[in-house]
Amino acid sequence: MLQLYIGNKNYSSWSMRPWVLMKAAGIAFDEVKVRFDSFEPDSTFKRTMGDLVPTGKVPALVIDDQPGRAPQVVWDTLAIAETLAERFPDHALWPTDPRRRALARSLCAEMHSGFTALRSHCPMNIEAQLPEIGARVMAEQPGVRADLARIEAMWTGCLSGHGGPWLMGDRLGIVDAYYAPVAMRLRGYALPVHAAVADYIERLSASPGVAAWIADALAEHDFLDFEEPYRSAR
Amino acid sequence: MLQLYIGNKNYSSWSMRPWVLMKAAGIAFDEVKVRFDSFEPDSTFKRTMGDLVPTGKVPALVIDDQPGRAPQVVWDTLAIAETLAERFPDHALWPTDPRRRALARSLCAEMHSGFTALRSHCPMNIEAQLPEIGARVMAEQPGVRADLARIEAMWTGCLSGHGGPWLMGDRLGIVDAYYAPVAMRLRGYALPVHAAVADYIERLSASPGVAAWIADALAEHDFLDFEEPYRSAR
Ligand SMILES: N[C@@H](CCC(=O)N[C@@H](CS)C(=O)NCC(=O)O)C(=O)O
Ligand SMILES: N[C@@H](CCC(=O)N[C@@H](CS)C(=O)NCC(=O)O)C(=O)O
Repeated sequence: MLQLYIGNKNYSSWSMRPWVLMKAAGIAFDEVKVRFDSFEPDSTFKRTMGDLVPTGKVPALVIDDQPGRAPQVVWDTLAIAETLAERFPDHALWPTDPRRRALARSLCAEMHSGFTALRSHCPMNIEAQLPEIGARVMAEQPGVRADLARIEAMWTGCLSGHGGPWLMGDRLGIVDAYYAPVAMRLRGYALPVHAAVADYIERLSASPGVAAWIADALAEHDFLDFEEPYRSAR
Repeated sequence: MLQLYIGNKNYSSWSMRPWVLMKAAGIAFDEVKVRFDSFEPDSTFKRTMGDLVPTGKVPALVIDDQPGRAPQVVWDTLAIAETLAERFPDHALWPTDPRRRALARSLCAEMHSGFTALRSHCPMNIEAQLPEIGARVMAEQPGVRADLARIEAMWTGCLSGHGGPWLMGDRLGIVDAYYAPVAMRLRGYALPVHAAVADYIERLSASPGVAAWIADALAEHDFLDFEEPYRSAR
């Protein structure tokens, strides 16, 4: 029995990763959504997640498969991804070739602690169309331009080097799930990308796991001030 | 054949992790030190590392074991740690128990993208003794106090829960290597810690891998302005 704790689907880029990964792979789990009322210590969100994990953040994976033992709680997307890859070897969530697997891990770790300019200037907001903001940010923020250049080089290199249609080859795996929220940002802020990258974003957005997440995000109809630097209402 | 690219030992907290891990486990490698002349695009450091890895950062692990194929380059500490764990299963770099392994991965991923207050206010500087700065930072920075409280809870919980002497039990593994630079900061800035934590810091500092890194750092005699928010000279 697996449970995945997530935040708002429109906003929570970290939650999106393991959710999309498990859906794409066909790994069954129950979703527990904890709405972002706020990130203040006394918020329902922080109290709920703080009871579950020491960081008080989503996502968290609860594994309840050992009768008589307390369920295990795994936090942080990268630890969740590795734990799932290990528990479901048949799904090949990482590439099976060791060399390609090491590359996949470098790319995910790079995402995990990097792309800070893109993440802070273009927070994920799936329902919003913000092309003017995207244009302004590209003009004014060299860090965003550098992040975008790196994404473009990475994705075009992976797609041509591994034959597509996914970043590591013929399977949508952890790397695609890890970069799915980045694809959402490139789309929503209409950042200028090469054709191969635009095609990949479209393909990824239409893939069952990502499409399901987007549909749920669009159905959410929630507006959270502290996640909205650019809009004053929906 | 393994080569590990690292930065200045006195300053480079990310480089320290895989270096200490491999030394502690007895995994042979050649060290390639690339001095931090600066992080400007035209620095020798950035040009050297930029030729090797897309992020232009240390550490990077070069694996050259397939005759007739280009060496593989793995970047980012977390990808390096996973790749080493996979290549050297006998060294049990992660705990062998799956449940404890998942916990270990959560703790390392938490470090990888977290503890930003401690990292920015108390940058690693092994040779420096900065107790007054530590006292000031503790008084003025709630983020540092929160990071320290989390470290103390994590370490005391691990040490008592897994029996010590290392965080995951009887082997110095990835989690200890991952938190070794944090131990260096707690020591150098003399942050106030409980006895069990102070003992662990001492034990870790005296362990062969960490002690060797510290000795090399002390022998470096290099002073880099941009890594020194608190000193004006050595
Ligand atoms: N490194 C973590 C990041 C998780 C994270 O920052 N989650 C956000 C939501 S997308 C959160 O829970 N924020 C609450 C807070 O910062 O208090 C991971 O990879 O899981
Ligand atoms: N997430 C990376 C971080 C590596 C990192 O930031 N390394 C620093 C030295 S400790 C660096 O190379 N900085 C150069 C720069 O930022 O340009 C990892 O875990 O390896």
